[in-house]
Amino acid sequence: MSDEGFGGSSPPDDYRRRLHDAAMKAAKEAVASGLAGRDAHLMQAVKALDDLNEAFNVLSERLAEWYMVLCPGHQMRPVELIDFILKEGLPEEDSVIKGLASTAKALNDERKALEGYIKAAMEEIAPNLSNVAGPILGARLIARAGGLEKLAKMPASSIQVMGAGEALFKHLKAGTPPPKHGLIYKHPLVKGASKKARGKISRMLASKAAIAARVDFYSGETVDLGDLKEKAAAIKAKGRKKHECR
Amino acid sequence: MSDEGFGGSSPPDDYRRRLHDAAMKAAKEAVASGLAGRDAHLMQAVKALDDLNEAFNVLSERLAEWYMVLCPGHQMRPVELIDFILKEGLPEEDSVIKGLASTAKALNDERKALEGYIKAAMEEIAPNLSNVAGPILGARLIARAGGLEKLAKMPASSIQVMGAGEALFKHLKAGTPPPKHGLIYKHPLVKGASKKARGKISRMLASKAAIAARVDFYSGETVDLGDLKEKAAAIKAKGRKKHECR
Repeated sequence: MSDEGFGGSSPPDDYRRRLHDAAMKAAKEAVASGLAGRDAHLMQAVKALDDLNEAFNVLSERLAEWYMVLCPGHQMRPVELIDFILKEGLPEEDSVIKGLASTAKALNDERKALEGYIKAAMEEIAPNLSNVAGPILGARLIARAGGLEKLAKMPASSIQVMGAGEALFKHLKAGTPPPKHGLIYKHPLVKGASKKARGKISRMLASKAAIAARVDFYSGETVDLGDLKEKAAAIKAKGRKKHECR
Repeated sequence: MSDEGFGGSSPPDDYRRRLHDAAMKAAKEAVASGLAGRDAHLMQAVKALDDLNEAFNVLSERLAEWYMVLCPGHQMRPVELIDFILKEGLPEEDSVIKGLASTAKALNDERKALEGYIKAAMEEIAPNLSNVAGPILGARLIARAGGLEKLAKMPASSIQVMGAGEALFKHLKAGTPPPKHGLIYKHPLVKGASKKARGKISRMLASKAAIAARVDFYSGETVDLGDLKEKAAAIKAKGRKKHECR
């Protein structure tokens, strides 16, 4: 038996050490490539935007409830109330409530700044996807997929239901109807459509988004994917026509 | 039949109208008295503090994850990282990450400001309870009870387990051992004690807190409730002695 085999006691140790080294190297490279891409910052920005949205909602609701102590039954909306408190001041506990209002305002301003950053980054990283889905939804799709490369390798049908995890699980387990849309539901063309047309419009959008992501990742050029509004209108009209014929 | 009875069609209408007016008046007064107390602001401040804690934790964790993209494996703690980013700057995406860091810093500063407000308010509204439980835990007890008056009317045993809702429910439904402490667990004398002594120390603290809340609400004077540290030490020593005798 050669030294490279498993005969003695030393070669297996050596083999294990080399296996361990190779596995560690592969793992480190995988982590590094996952983190190093230009889209890594974009993904963090999308998650941070969600965190900021949540924090702003909680704090502005708290502020509205606190303001109720001073003025029961007020009807101001969160952003209005924050501006009002910062401008007008309050008869009681002025400084502490104002402090909370300016913290909520800081969250709102940072939210807007992050949206601006995401729009600019999408323009650079994935302009075609940004055109199809809008910059924020496009960035959400990239973040959910785990990067632009992974999104570019996904079939359109996966993009269509990405983010509808629970409904998909129910479909597979309990046989409920499959979900028609996940994240893509947020697209104004889907959200604004009748319940009947939504499934078809989200399939159309998902297939365009899949093409856009591939062009963005592999070539970086700009492609013309047609007028999506027109296509959605055609799908809606077709649905209505069928209905009339019956 | 007189006009005041139920003979015609008009008196019942009048009766209903007056009943409605009286009920509305009583409801409005109840809402107003619930909101108008000096402790109403304190309760809102405690809830706001919890909201701020949660938001700060989420944002600072997000920042740590984002910073990992630039420097995998860093070991800085949240507040350290925020200071570092704001001071040193970053090689990439500087302005957007700095913006998030300064938003997280604003949350942290506001948290400290609210704690200061709560301490000052407790000194004014419930100085005895503040002495027994500390200002923040004391304010939490008031907030959970729904006001200083309600806390003052609670038996000590309720104060002891207030905030242990789920464990109490399990005890009543499934016969598990009753909870020994709820919110009061956060008191350093309970938290620092052995598992065996915790139940007794929290009962002692709850009874002192009940007395303190009553004095604060009904007289506003300062009472001497003894040295709590000494009492807790005596409970611990008794527990150890018993153990040695066996």
